[in-house]
Amino acid sequence: MAPLRAIPPDLLTLADYEARAATHLPAASWRHIQEGAGAERTLRDNRTAFDRWRLLPRALADLRDGDTVVELFGQRHIAPILLAPLAYQRIAHPDGERATACASAALGTGMVVSTLSSVTLEDILAAQRSAAQELGSGDAPAWFQLYLQPERAANLALVRRAEAAGYQAIVLTIDAAIKRSSFALPDGVAAANLAGMAPPRQVSMAGGPILFGTPLADAAPRWDDLDWLRQATRLPIILKGMVLGKDLDRALSLGIDGLILSNHGGRVLDGLPSALTMLPGVVDRVAGRIPVLLDGGVRTGTDIVTAIALGARAVLIGRPLFHALAVAGMIGVAHMIHILRTELEMTMAQLGAPRLSSLKREMLVGPAPPRLDVLDGGNPWVTTAH
Amino acid sequence: MAPLRAIPPDLLTLADYEARAATHLPAASWRHIQEGAGAERTLRDNRTAFDRWRLLPRALADLRDGDTVVELFGQRHIAPILLAPLAYQRIAHPDGERATACASAALGTGMVVSTLSSVTLEDILAAQRSAAQELGSGDAPAWFQLYLQPERAANLALVRRAEAAGYQAIVLTIDAAIKRSSFALPDGVAAANLAGMAPPRQVSMAGGPILFGTPLADAAPRWDDLDWLRQATRLPIILKGMVLGKDLDRALSLGIDGLILSNHGGRVLDGLPSALTMLPGVVDRVAGRIPVLLDGGVRTGTDIVTAIALGARAVLIGRPLFHALAVAGMIGVAHMIHILRTELEMTMAQLGAPRLSSLKREMLVGPAPPRLDVLDGGNPWVTTAH
Amino acid sequence: MAPLRAIPPDLLTLADYEARAATHLPAASWRHIQEGAGAERTLRDNRTAFDRWRLLPRALADLRDGDTVVELFGQRHIAPILLAPLAYQRIAHPDGERATACASAALGTGMVVSTLSSVTLEDILAAQRSAAQELGSGDAPAWFQLYLQPERAANLALVRRAEAAGYQAIVLTIDAAIKRSSFALPDGVAAANLAGMAPPRQVSMAGGPILFGTPLADAAPRWDDLDWLRQATRLPIILKGMVLGKDLDRALSLGIDGLILSNHGGRVLDGLPSALTMLPGVVDRVAGRIPVLLDGGVRTGTDIVTAIALGARAVLIGRPLFHALAVAGMIGVAHMIHILRTELEMTMAQLGAPRLSSLKREMLVGPAPPRLDVLDGGNPWVTTAH
Amino acid sequence: MAPLRAIPPDLLTLADYEARAATHLPAASWRHIQEGAGAERTLRDNRTAFDRWRLLPRALADLRDGDTVVELFGQRHIAPILLAPLAYQRIAHPDGERATACASAALGTGMVVSTLSSVTLEDILAAQRSAAQELGSGDAPAWFQLYLQPERAANLALVRRAEAAGYQAIVLTIDAAIKRSSFALPDGVAAANLAGMAPPRQVSMAGGPILFGTPLADAAPRWDDLDWLRQATRLPIILKGMVLGKDLDRALSLGIDGLILSNHGGRVLDGLPSALTMLPGVVDRVAGRIPVLLDGGVRTGTDIVTAIALGARAVLIGRPLFHALAVAGMIGVAHMIHILRTELEMTMAQLGAPRLSSLKREMLVGPAPPRLDVLDGGNPWVTTAH
Repeated sequence: MAPLRAIPPDLLTLADYEARAATHLPAASWRHIQEGAGAERTLRDNRTAFDRWRLLPRALADLRDGDTVVELFGQRHIAPILLAPLAYQRIAHPDGERATACASAALGTGMVVSTLSSVTLEDILAAQRSAAQELGSGDAPAWFQLYLQPERAANLALVRRAEAAGYQAIVLTIDAAIKRSSFALPDGVAAANLAGMAPPRQVSMAGGPILFGTPLADAAPRWDDLDWLRQATRLPIILKGMVLGKDLDRALSLGIDGLILSNHGGRVLDGLPSALTMLPGVVDRVAGRIPVLLDGGVRTGTDIVTAIALGARAVLIGRPLFHALAVAGMIGVAHMIHILRTELEMTMAQLGAPRLSSLKREMLVGPAPPRLDVLDGGNPWVTTAH
Repeated sequence: MAPLRAIPPDLLTLADYEARAATHLPAASWRHIQEGAGAERTLRDNRTAFDRWRLLPRALADLRDGDTVVELFGQRHIAPILLAPLAYQRIAHPDGERATACASAALGTGMVVSTLSSVTLEDILAAQRSAAQELGSGDAPAWFQLYLQPERAANLALVRRAEAAGYQAIVLTIDAAIKRSSFALPDGVAAANLAGMAPPRQVSMAGGPILFGTPLADAAPRWDDLDWLRQATRLPIILKGMVLGKDLDRALSLGIDGLILSNHGGRVLDGLPSALTMLPGVVDRVAGRIPVLLDGGVRTGTDIVTAIALGARAVLIGRPLFHALAVAGMIGVAHMIHILRTELEMTMAQLGAPRLSSLKREMLVGPAPPRLDVLDGGNPWVTTAH
Repeated sequence: MAPLRAIPPDLLTLADYEARAATHLPAASWRHIQEGAGAERTLRDNRTAFDRWRLLPRALADLRDGDTVVELFGQRHIAPILLAPLAYQRIAHPDGERATACASAALGTGMVVSTLSSVTLEDILAAQRSAAQELGSGDAPAWFQLYLQPERAANLALVRRAEAAGYQAIVLTIDAAIKRSSFALPDGVAAANLAGMAPPRQVSMAGGPILFGTPLADAAPRWDDLDWLRQATRLPIILKGMVLGKDLDRALSLGIDGLILSNHGGRVLDGLPSALTMLPGVVDRVAGRIPVLLDGGVRTGTDIVTAIALGARAVLIGRPLFHALAVAGMIGVAHMIHILRTELEMTMAQLGAPRLSSLKREMLVGPAPPRLDVLDGGNPWVTTAH
Repeated sequence: MAPLRAIPPDLLTLADYEARAATHLPAASWRHIQEGAGAERTLRDNRTAFDRWRLLPRALADLRDGDTVVELFGQRHIAPILLAPLAYQRIAHPDGERATACASAALGTGMVVSTLSSVTLEDILAAQRSAAQELGSGDAPAWFQLYLQPERAANLALVRRAEAAGYQAIVLTIDAAIKRSSFALPDGVAAANLAGMAPPRQVSMAGGPILFGTPLADAAPRWDDLDWLRQATRLPIILKGMVLGKDLDRALSLGIDGLILSNHGGRVLDGLPSALTMLPGVVDRVAGRIPVLLDGGVRTGTDIVTAIALGARAVLIGRPLFHALAVAGMIGVAHMIHILRTELEMTMAQLGAPRLSSLKREMLVGPAPPRLDVLDGGNPWVTTAH
């Protein structure tokens, strides 16, 4: 079914968008968007982790002068919500990342653009800026997500293009270097930023090496790549992935500016814990030195409140962006963001919390997180809910 | 299907009433009555919280001279059961609150009348009193539930009307000021007590404020409203909502007389814990200074015993009142109360507990409640069952 | 379908008997046999309590000279299995308790005869004895279960009849005095031992007393009834029900000889814990002064091993007796017992435990039981699995 | 359906093989392969035990020079994977153990040959060796699994044949001596190694002994059999079964060289814990003196990583071998192993673990294992997940 040109009245939640999206996408694309790795334990964890928390309200609080503003890397975000760096957004809608960029401008919500975008990074930012101008609104935040390429020259070129275009931060994804997918991109959808480059391919022969000892393993991102990137740009660098324990210290010492705690939507390794489960321990370890953002499983305003109360500074919205794009393109994405922002304010008001800083851990009851020393090689014998 | 005029023999439990009620209500009304907010986690919690407790009986106890009497605010209640302040009861039956009032009189069970009743508060109390006179029984307790209106003059008028009519307590609901519903009241059903007043409406424009900074957030009840109410009436004031931790101290210092621990039937904010989960901590904190009542999820005599053993002085019955009204009006409600009272006495007898005061915490085994310091901003890392 | 006259080869487990029994019974009888009180939480607990335990085997143990013998009140039981005092067994088979008695004789398995048997207690014991004689086997144990009647003269008469007939123990059931059932006994099935006596009936009028203040509550068994019974007979007295904490001390001080820990098959009060859950605490409290038997949920040899390892001296088999009776009368019951005994020996052998005394708590892993001080009125905040 | 001669593209996981295998097997054989003992609690545990663990990755690790090599008893294994000693493999494919042996040779993966193989142990090893020669690869490890026969002469003969054929270790299974199965072997499938020997049969007569006191119980393996075997061969002896607590010390003192922790695929005694649940305690107790291998429930590379991180040195693959044999014989088995090895390397790489020794307990979060003193007769009151 073609994307809608107006929002029907029965689309009230992100779950409504998800249910509707299946009818707007070819079956293969739908499966590709929805699926997780393996038996999808991690994918399920990403949702059930939120279901386990309950919220303790403050009675009769004063809600006048409330807002949902958060500042990140010197930028003002009107709400703690960013659009995640989904690859190949033209899978879901012909306008692809352009539609996303316009919705970002219209709602003032930050976007993160993928290395694997199906529109060039320059065109995406141009679309966002011209939409903002048309609407008379200020520029919304825009960050560039980097998948490291085998050659440093290619990485440098991408970073320089992002800087030149005006992106305000680099998000370095560390967890998807080694990944397989049998999904064939639809005709006309390609990695626009990588035109002319070929990714390394894994070819295993019977009896020969499988992964270890092949170029794929050899080219996986390493700490020295982060060190190199830190030297290569003055933009804020935000790591995206499961960075835990001592790795956090190392990353901080290398000068990262932020962390997006993420298991890549359960798409890379089935068996990773949900980001929400690990969030409290990571926040405690980071101890305020950099902001920690959460990616994975956020579908409602209550989810956002839960993540913020557990220490996240903001959240990223992934699959729902695909759903909204598929259903109604730019207006779908704008509406989806509006739903989330409305739910967020309603939840905060009902909790008696007029500002994000009013959301504290003690407003939650839920499962104990893994003990912190697990992250440093301590005793892992901890019953933790997934 | 029209309401029944006699009770068929297969209506033996409140679950039977619920199953039957669906056939006596228009689909939209049924959905409105049954639904909870969001993904209905809180709605489900309200039931599953009871399922987790088990009861330890006393063997061979003397059951002679048993009863289920409880005294609240100087009133004698024949059983620890009150009819909850459901709004717009004419949704379920043409007689609406009048039928409820007659059943209250017939069974001697207290009722709480909603600000949003579909019959005026004066007519409801008159119906209860004349039914009691006809039956030769004494007056049953009647309390008035107050939703704060934007103007204090309106609130004062409601309180004065309740006092003049003869209500014996004011129940101040604190949790539903900010709530949305798409349910359209059926023709002829309206807020009888508020004739001539218009509630504030939330109008959000794209790019403009959503909730914070609008009249809806600005008019939400605050502590000074409670202070004002305390000055405005000499009737007992009972707070209804999730009042926890330091808020309990504050409410007590402002002179409240009772608390109905409630999450509004899971209708306001999905993510609130069940009242039963929070009950032990609240009871410990209140330490006997005022009675704590429980609202939410009570469907059987065993549920009542569980709540009483965990420290509640009485319980409120919500949705089952709608179900019984829809099935058989006044006689349905009376029968529903009789079922609960019978189950309550059977359960107490089987436990060897001839009086409510015989029901103690140590007669229960079940999940540990959230640690008390959570309520004061302590460590929330507590595994708690929802 | 009429009862079978030979055992078909596909009846291999007690679950097979249960599945088959539904086709041999009128629907009302089947429901009556299977049902539990209320929402059947306790009924389900009785099974799931067993599912939570796992068994730790001993490797390479010597299994020569193994057996399953247990001694109780001076009687030798060939296996720790007794047939429970099911009422009105002619519901399931025309021969009723006579068939049960013959199977008891054939397998040498003890039986407990109900006050509410549908054959007189004298005829049942005669059937057991004559079957034993015919088979050339010794007498199997036979105990008489007593429901206290309102008049002591009636109770004394029952006890004297049981003594005269040759029963070797009195099982005093304490938990079913106050119970309701809408099941109408089929034609020709009646309480054979109580011919001429009428049970007290509960008649509640609207507005009048419900249970407390009625003869039903006033006649419930009390501690002085136990004291009286102890004076009235020299047979061993075994209490059957949920006797916990201080009640255990009191019962011991009154001279009971044994305890059958039971929640009456989940038929009396929904919300009681399973007997298996409470067993370890009860066994610890009793500290070997009397044997503790377990009733409820036993369906396999592994269940028996679990109960014995947790401290039970023997188990009672309830509903499966009805199932086997319905399917094939006496030979069904005999086969059912043989299945259990075979499974018991197989399980013991696979665990490396050649005798019941080899089964110890440390061969189990499973949920922590409620803390013992709960049983004495201590802190109930214990997470316990049901 | 006949076995396939080429691998179709939709066979991507071991679960795919399982789903497909049902269509390649007679219903009775399929049931026999899939079924577990009793209510299949242990069978389910074997899978769910893995589902409860989550993996904590190391960020940006150096993956160059990775491998999955492990050394066992002086043999080099290319991956920590062995084919389990499944009996009667010709049930699944006409080539039976010959196909398995060829796949073992082709992938360099060790195989364990059952006493109850449907091809003689000599022919199996010959098939493996000639396949290796044809492929130009080195010999893959081959171990012989011994079920003790009633006569020591028969056992000695089997051991001598295994030694003579060139097997490199003896796996002594201790847990299946007492077991029942109603499965009738298909025509032409028989215990090739035991031609001419008859197993003891259990014949129980009504009223007579059931198991204890019969030849079946008397012939169960005992500690002195292990002692005898240790004297009888210089090959490494590996115990297979649930060996726990003090039994581990005793087995070590008798000179065993390795342990395969196994509950026999949940086929022997329903109620045994999963091997994975007991693994950490066993590994701690063994304290590195011998390697501990894990058998049961392994279906993915993540499962292997979980077992290795919890202390296993390698894992055995059971039912999936039957599935792959049924679907495509030798090429099916080879493909199945290749899938596992690929998943194993992918998982290790995604975790940042380039070698098996990089996999440590602290990379896991999951349920606490049973406390170690349980294994020695300590307090069993431990809540453990199954």
